[in-house]
Amino acid sequence: MKTDRIQAFSDGIFSILITVIVLEFNIPSYSNGHLAAAVWQQWPKFFAYVLTFSYIGILWLFHHDMFSCIQATDAKLNVLNLISIFLTTLLSYSMSLLSESLVTHNLSDLQFSIIFYSLLALSISLSYLEFYHYLFQKSYLLTDHTIKFQLQDLRKYPLASCLIYLLALISTVFNVYAGLLFLVAGILFHGFAYWEIAKSA
Amino acid sequence: MKTDRIQAFSDGIFSILITVIVLEFNIPSYSNGHLAAAVWQQWPKFFAYVLTFSYIGILWLFHHDMFSCIQATDAKLNVLNLISIFLTTLLSYSMSLLSESLVTHNLSDLQFSIIFYSLLALSISLSYLEFYHYLFQKSYLLTDHTIKFQLQDLRKYPLASCLIYLLALISTVFNVYAGLLFLVAGILFHGFAYWEIAKSA
Amino acid sequence: MKTDRIQAFSDGIFSILITVIVLEFNIPSYSNGHLAAAVWQQWPKFFAYVLTFSYIGILWLFHHDMFSCIQATDAKLNVLNLISIFLTTLLSYSMSLLSESLVTHNLSDLQFSIIFYSLLALSISLSYLEFYHYLFQKSYLLTDHTIKFQLQDLRKYPLASCLIYLLALISTVFNVYAGLLFLVAGILFHGFAYWEIAKSA
Amino acid sequence: MKTDRIQAFSDGIFSILITVIVLEFNIPSYSNGHLAAAVWQQWPKFFAYVLTFSYIGILWLFHHDMFSCIQATDAKLNVLNLISIFLTTLLSYSMSLLSESLVTHNLSDLQFSIIFYSLLALSISLSYLEFYHYLFQKSYLLTDHTIKFQLQDLRKYPLASCLIYLLALISTVFNVYAGLLFLVAGILFHGFAYWEIAKSA
Repeated sequence: MKTDRIQAFSDGIFSILITVIVLEFNIPSYSNGHLAAAVWQQWPKFFAYVLTFSYIGILWLFHHDMFSCIQATDAKLNVLNLISIFLTTLLSYSMSLLSESLVTHNLSDLQFSIIFYSLLALSISLSYLEFYHYLFQKSYLLTDHTIKFQLQDLRKYPLASCLIYLLALISTVFNVYAGLLFLVAGILFHGFAYWEIAKSA
Repeated sequence: MKTDRIQAFSDGIFSILITVIVLEFNIPSYSNGHLAAAVWQQWPKFFAYVLTFSYIGILWLFHHDMFSCIQATDAKLNVLNLISIFLTTLLSYSMSLLSESLVTHNLSDLQFSIIFYSLLALSISLSYLEFYHYLFQKSYLLTDHTIKFQLQDLRKYPLASCLIYLLALISTVFNVYAGLLFLVAGILFHGFAYWEIAKSA
Repeated sequence: MKTDRIQAFSDGIFSILITVIVLEFNIPSYSNGHLAAAVWQQWPKFFAYVLTFSYIGILWLFHHDMFSCIQATDAKLNVLNLISIFLTTLLSYSMSLLSESLVTHNLSDLQFSIIFYSLLALSISLSYLEFYHYLFQKSYLLTDHTIKFQLQDLRKYPLASCLIYLLALISTVFNVYAGLLFLVAGILFHGFAYWEIAKSA
Repeated sequence: MKTDRIQAFSDGIFSILITVIVLEFNIPSYSNGHLAAAVWQQWPKFFAYVLTFSYIGILWLFHHDMFSCIQATDAKLNVLNLISIFLTTLLSYSMSLLSESLVTHNLSDLQFSIIFYSLLALSISLSYLEFYHYLFQKSYLLTDHTIKFQLQDLRKYPLASCLIYLLALISTVFNVYAGLLFLVAGILFHGFAYWEIAKSA
């Protein structure tokens, strides 16, 4: 089974998701003459939007590079891809939770939102770990058998990000801002990892 | 007439539909400090979302595999494809009906929602039955004439799913939960059928 | 300039538009136990949705077939395509107007909605007339110079549909239901025209 | 790294963005029998929609032509593309701000909206300036090394548009309508620039 339509389908979902989340970032209610103030007070929405846009954008870059190493796909890879993309679509929901609780600034709601977002990010990292693991085993799916050793090496990145998101989960219980910091660090780490891999390629 | 743009158009619709349904799964209204409780109470929405995401995902896998066996398309196949996709887009509406009535938990509303969803799933299965039937007759549209015997064999899957959805329809009249069970079974059956076909390929 | 990205861009817009209009067709407000009745009363929304889905679907089929005859594009064709697609995106707005006024059933609102929809459909037909006219003149843009005579022949279809939409416009002033009938006839005529062209090809 | 998936991803986002902004342009609230009047009073929404649709459409044409000159992409170009597209998605938000404040017609809100839109348009032009600058330096990414001199020549267009948007920013402080005029002029200038480039090609 060829990969081109799987890629097109996945690309479609990534590009739709990254675009529709801007619709969540809508105009605030305001009294005439105070639009500017109302917009400035939306900074938590903007922060959650930038964070999630970057996250989905980097996930797409990784997905793109991984599938460019795959020459054929099988049923398990298709199902794994659907699960990974299902988790990714939930990012729009967890972004709304985060921005909402950053606006109301209720600590227990904020804690819940950060735990939700971190758990989701952890699951997405685990799905990529499973991608690399499966492709290492079924190396005949790759365009070149030797790539499997590169993929084995790449596994350190989702593993490290799993650790960061686990730290976010645990630290949130004690201090929500520490949790948020680790969550942002985890997403920044994906960007750093992509940069490192791209440089060495 | 070539199939690449039909595929691109269909892929586009499948990927948009599977992404926009997450927008239905929006943040609940809640009082400060009770976000977590409000989110947990949204489990019917989450259930209906996971069910419909899986359904559309599997439909796409079938659509993908079927069109990869087609080398040329004609006017009737285009129209049949538009009808099948039209029915598929209505899944977002029937998902909303199901999740709404699972939240309010009114039995007669729930019954209506399950009947609506089952009828729609039945119609979609019938459209795939017609796809296989038409391609069996017009085997010159296939990349390889011998595939038509495989397609004839594949017809048992939509036929079986039609029966399951019919059972869902009938049993709902007596017990909504039995109806819901058959509906879920029908969608799980699509996943099982895809797995069986992929394994034997 | 090659046509593949223009086609991909246009296909993207057609498939998004045909999918997002289902979001307009949302769950009605209802009192518990009366969901079925509330859904049945939504038939005008369903009618407007089916009509617009079919219209956009057929427009895509025409757009698809026209661009498969084009081997290169120029600045004017790109701009003409953007204008034609801009008009097509407004169909979601005119669909909302139509379904809204079919629900409230106010005659003067219904008249306005039918005039709006008919004017839009007329403009879209004019844009296809201009497509065929421009491609007849610049036949070096076509994959085969002889196609220009086929395109000249095809012009009778948008011309006829312009007449039908003009009839819809005029008759609406006297009787809104006559206007609606002509509007529906115009869209059915596109389907009939596509069928005729596909059969003779 | 090949450019085809980056193009597909970008095209996807452009086509989704240009389609979903029509959803902002929704039916006004009205009393029965006054739909027509309510729609006519929506002209500011229509104006902002046409302006933004044209802007995104022309941006896509530029993006399309630029990427058709690129044969390979690297990490920095990918990141630059994500930033440029991120800014472009914010156009839906700034369109809402503009149309909202054109409806309420509050001068200080209108001023803020025009400043927001102009700043965004300025940033997008700067991102294209950086595109051309980077591709001039890394000319081995281009399909043909000599194109870099054309790209250097093309830089005058985003530079000029930066100046126009700067004028919009400054003049808005004194007179909002002058600011709006320069903003519209900036977007019209993109269309003029595309036409000039297409003619000379």
